[in-house]
Amino acid sequence: MKKIKVALAGLGRIGKIHLHNLCRNVAGVELVAVMDVMEESGEIAKEYGVPRVLNDFDELIAIEEVDAVVICSPTDLHADHIIKAARAGKDIFCEKPLDLSLAKVIEVLKVVEECGVKLMLGFNRRFDPDFAKIRDLVVSDSVGDPQIIKITSRDPGPPPLSYIKVSGGMFLDMAIHDFDMARYISGKEVKEVFAAGAVKVDPGIGEAGDFDTAVTTLIFEDDTLAVIDNSREAAYGYDQRLEVFGSKGMAQADNNFPNNHRLFTGERVSGDLPLHFFLERYQESYVKEMKQFIEALKTGVDMPVGARDGLMSIVIALAATKSAKEKRPVKITEFNTIVP
Amino acid sequence: MKKIKVALAGLGRIGKIHLHNLCRNVAGVELVAVMDVMEESGEIAKEYGVPRVLNDFDELIAIEEVDAVVICSPTDLHADHIIKAARAGKDIFCEKPLDLSLAKVIEVLKVVEECGVKLMLGFNRRFDPDFAKIRDLVVSDSVGDPQIIKITSRDPGPPPLSYIKVSGGMFLDMAIHDFDMARYISGKEVKEVFAAGAVKVDPGIGEAGDFDTAVTTLIFEDDTLAVIDNSREAAYGYDQRLEVFGSKGMAQADNNFPNNHRLFTGERVSGDLPLHFFLERYQESYVKEMKQFIEALKTGVDMPVGARDGLMSIVIALAATKSAKEKRPVKITEFNTIVP
Amino acid sequence: MKKIKVALAGLGRIGKIHLHNLCRNVAGVELVAVMDVMEESGEIAKEYGVPRVLNDFDELIAIEEVDAVVICSPTDLHADHIIKAARAGKDIFCEKPLDLSLAKVIEVLKVVEECGVKLMLGFNRRFDPDFAKIRDLVVSDSVGDPQIIKITSRDPGPPPLSYIKVSGGMFLDMAIHDFDMARYISGKEVKEVFAAGAVKVDPGIGEAGDFDTAVTTLIFEDDTLAVIDNSREAAYGYDQRLEVFGSKGMAQADNNFPNNHRLFTGERVSGDLPLHFFLERYQESYVKEMKQFIEALKTGVDMPVGARDGLMSIVIALAATKSAKEKRPVKITEFNTIVP
Amino acid sequence: MKKIKVALAGLGRIGKIHLHNLCRNVAGVELVAVMDVMEESGEIAKEYGVPRVLNDFDELIAIEEVDAVVICSPTDLHADHIIKAARAGKDIFCEKPLDLSLAKVIEVLKVVEECGVKLMLGFNRRFDPDFAKIRDLVVSDSVGDPQIIKITSRDPGPPPLSYIKVSGGMFLDMAIHDFDMARYISGKEVKEVFAAGAVKVDPGIGEAGDFDTAVTTLIFEDDTLAVIDNSREAAYGYDQRLEVFGSKGMAQADNNFPNNHRLFTGERVSGDLPLHFFLERYQESYVKEMKQFIEALKTGVDMPVGARDGLMSIVIALAATKSAKEKRPVKITEFNTIVP
Repeated sequence: MKKIKVALAGLGRIGKIHLHNLCRNVAGVELVAVMDVMEESGEIAKEYGVPRVLNDFDELIAIEEVDAVVICSPTDLHADHIIKAARAGKDIFCEKPLDLSLAKVIEVLKVVEECGVKLMLGFNRRFDPDFAKIRDLVVSDSVGDPQIIKITSRDPGPPPLSYIKVSGGMFLDMAIHDFDMARYISGKEVKEVFAAGAVKVDPGIGEAGDFDTAVTTLIFEDDTLAVIDNSREAAYGYDQRLEVFGSKGMAQADNNFPNNHRLFTGERVSGDLPLHFFLERYQESYVKEMKQFIEALKTGVDMPVGARDGLMSIVIALAATKSAKEKRPVKITEFNTIVP
Repeated sequence: MKKIKVALAGLGRIGKIHLHNLCRNVAGVELVAVMDVMEESGEIAKEYGVPRVLNDFDELIAIEEVDAVVICSPTDLHADHIIKAARAGKDIFCEKPLDLSLAKVIEVLKVVEECGVKLMLGFNRRFDPDFAKIRDLVVSDSVGDPQIIKITSRDPGPPPLSYIKVSGGMFLDMAIHDFDMARYISGKEVKEVFAAGAVKVDPGIGEAGDFDTAVTTLIFEDDTLAVIDNSREAAYGYDQRLEVFGSKGMAQADNNFPNNHRLFTGERVSGDLPLHFFLERYQESYVKEMKQFIEALKTGVDMPVGARDGLMSIVIALAATKSAKEKRPVKITEFNTIVP
Repeated sequence: MKKIKVALAGLGRIGKIHLHNLCRNVAGVELVAVMDVMEESGEIAKEYGVPRVLNDFDELIAIEEVDAVVICSPTDLHADHIIKAARAGKDIFCEKPLDLSLAKVIEVLKVVEECGVKLMLGFNRRFDPDFAKIRDLVVSDSVGDPQIIKITSRDPGPPPLSYIKVSGGMFLDMAIHDFDMARYISGKEVKEVFAAGAVKVDPGIGEAGDFDTAVTTLIFEDDTLAVIDNSREAAYGYDQRLEVFGSKGMAQADNNFPNNHRLFTGERVSGDLPLHFFLERYQESYVKEMKQFIEALKTGVDMPVGARDGLMSIVIALAATKSAKEKRPVKITEFNTIVP
Repeated sequence: MKKIKVALAGLGRIGKIHLHNLCRNVAGVELVAVMDVMEESGEIAKEYGVPRVLNDFDELIAIEEVDAVVICSPTDLHADHIIKAARAGKDIFCEKPLDLSLAKVIEVLKVVEECGVKLMLGFNRRFDPDFAKIRDLVVSDSVGDPQIIKITSRDPGPPPLSYIKVSGGMFLDMAIHDFDMARYISGKEVKEVFAAGAVKVDPGIGEAGDFDTAVTTLIFEDDTLAVIDNSREAAYGYDQRLEVFGSKGMAQADNNFPNNHRLFTGERVSGDLPLHFFLERYQESYVKEMKQFIEALKTGVDMPVGARDGLMSIVIALAATKSAKEKRPVKITEFNTIVP
């Protein structure tokens, strides 16, 4: 069967993961070109045997044989890259978020639709074995109708302040994954958001106008409730948990650990700390995500994470940001004038 | 050493627990009289060898040798009974809540203070071994400064609608325990409350003007956040969990189970459902609570759960009720005109 | 209903537990007399309001109203006390083991049978909620036919050498509980025993001719295998676990802990050490054991732990001792000449 | 740095794993040729881009550029292939066991020594993250001196009877991994073995002169005890656990599961069955094993699993077989006449 020919833009942390997976772990795909503005970055692609290493996005999408583009460039280039790729008739995989500006997001999605290309968003956590299991249990009605969804999402440490200042803030940068997860698990849309934000980790984050600690309540159209707690710094490492409480029961996914040993000494019973951060925790989910992207291109089925998922997660994140700053619940309809 | 002489009013479910514990599990105490309006109820007290069984509260507090009164009467009699006991110079243990009316609560506490008697509130969960352990870990600074407190509190099934209608609602009747726990764990006062309520279990509860599902965010004076999720009906039984996330780490108490077996079959790995309800789960906490009440009477130390704890839990519950109904965050200062 | 009148002999550690439970936790029973050779020991019985406190066993069984005797005297008096009680027509509860001499045990059981009194042995672990659950799962065929039974049984520390020297050795003193458990779980009889003993804890124990570490394999009549690992000293405390592997699955009971908290710090995830020792771990099993003894006396059903259980556990313990010393498997039939 | 050039013989289940890992997951290695007697088997190697696919072992080792040979041929060819590879001056990785005949094993090891080539045995479980963690805890003295080592090792189902008949029996075919693990963990040599075997899974296995259920006690030179329980069929799937009890504490590795979810319904709390079988459970250990083999070739350090490990595991397996058949403990010295 014909292989899907893919070009990859951006070789930062996440770009390198997709490079590795496209070359080693995903069948039916051929990585024909890689692009990064810094020439040195391309060295790694050569080691993987990628035929072309470029430093200009326009050249990348000019390659005619390329079927699809995987966009891992910095967030502020996502919109531009998607539009260019769409106009070049390439199908697109893009890391989240689409853009920090809602107007821009809507413009991008319009272009994608007009060009008739496919777009998948990189909400990799949907492909995590634990979270996917919880979703399966919801879909199979094992927990009944969801009533309360609980997500814990804490990072081992904050990014540099310089990054935080351009990140769009905690809700757009970090909690956006959790908002997508809540929508994914419930299968419903959010109607209202209340976010309580605090500065507990680093006063500098507060001075930059952002929060580092938050509890967000999502109210869905049918009054299903979701609650998400976030922190930029968990002393014990990365913490990613999910719980769904429904009319028939509850399903929980605990955090992930590097092994399952227990050590009993004269002092305590203990075990190892959780997997360090997203590269370790979501290693398998990145492989599955890319496999499904390639599979969807081949079979023509809908993308597992589509344009609307990219849009709505941003709307919720903007609503949460507004709620935390204005200290009031914010209705999703407040964004109606611009959301199609 | 002289034994503390106690009289007990009310022999409902919780009254019977205190009857049993005072007669069997608490040292240094003598239960000299029991009172219940229904004469039949007194039968059980006779089996325990309680010398006097009465059906009138005034007679009960008229017994001169009585040092302290344990009040397990219906909620709407709490205020009246406390006032009478205080005026008779008896120290008091009273089940929560003090009253559904804040004005009445404040009046009651004033009388207690004027009479110079001691008052302990029955927030038994503080004495649960798991939750007490979490509190110890906070006090010993093992988790650092608390930043996020998470409480899950779900009942196996709702009480009758007739009860719900006079209960004061989900927040005053059920979540009040959790509000006390959040204050106990944080050691701080709440400044603002946002509660999202839903009707997911029984439409009749909604018609009665109450909620059966809720997620409540508490914002403490120092911006510590607490989040409580409540349901009137968990298909799998009683669910009581606590988590504290702080600057140095996290402490969790999982739900309690009747045993710790695991059964592996060709289908699943499985274990028993949680302990059924509060009588089973908090059996030990009721014993410890009464022991500490008696101990505090003997030694003269402060009551482990005092008047202010009783008051503030009600204020938070009223704020949560208002928040859920008015769909907005409610500041504790909104109750300032009446809270001393 | 008429209460069973009980007399209790011996107020050591275990005697005090039965004293407490008979007075506080078991219904339908009246403790009419208590006996201990040391008069001071009787003080505690007075606190519980026991009418008669004696220091002579003969006087105890001479009390006509006594229906049953609970024997908690030192092991070397068990045989004598059982025989006297049986001849006085009293039903009997006796702590394990019946005696260290097999010939004596057989004599005792003959007298009990001739006198037509009931005898229950104090194998309290059968009444532990976790182990009872495992037994239920076997009886209900949830694990199918047992094929491998695994028991871990380790003490927090060895008893004094002076005690070890008169204890009959590790197998008769300590592992006897586990041998009873293996028989209880399998519902079958053992045909052969291989025990590997080692001295790892204290050379003095080896010098006294005993072991402090052992792995014992039991081969049942139908070739079901059981394996028991024992140590006199686990640095982390008491360790009591059970696992049954059968044709349909496996059931496990983990060790018991004082609470179920988990603490996450920058170093480790940890929890509390197990319940310290048998008084803590088996608190509930002692209550249930005594309840079932009284219940069996009232209803006339068979004793839940009978004479044959007392006998066979000793035979297996003697076979294990012989096996460890002679370093060869020992057949139960080697004891045929004396076992009826 | 120069890459190690490897040739692979045998493309059965395990051979395919090493093929995949050598091509995809191990750095610094080049798989230059693959050999399988059945030409069709080579197809898969072509998909991985292996330059040469042969069907004759002699041709394989005749390739001059080959530095090392990975032998995954059937057990009865191991000896022949090792000898040929050694004589061709190739370093060797060979799957366990070396051979079913002790005389042959000794001959093979002599040739390997004479030829001065390196030999690593495929005891992959040593590289499992959970077991490696336990080993680290022993080496770092976290559990003190090992006193009791416990290994559970159960397969989801028996191999075909035709295979069992030529397998050398349960101890040589299956428990050999566990014997190696016990040696690895203790760091000591075994002096005596007692194995109790039973036929519980399939009478046909018994008729073939083999066992399907066993409990084996290993007595080490310093009286450390190890106990291994094996079954050819666990209804719930693959079961691989390890526990070390030492003077300072205990370390346990639980079985591995595909995810860590818990589902609470009205009936039970449950989770998924363990990882199905060795391909799933030991996926990561096969990668690490091959990485360490290549690393040892590059750096010249000792092989992580050497010739003596291959030899001693077979001697223990033969002793266990003899013990189970003759129903007596067997000393390792019984093999002294032939073991160097």
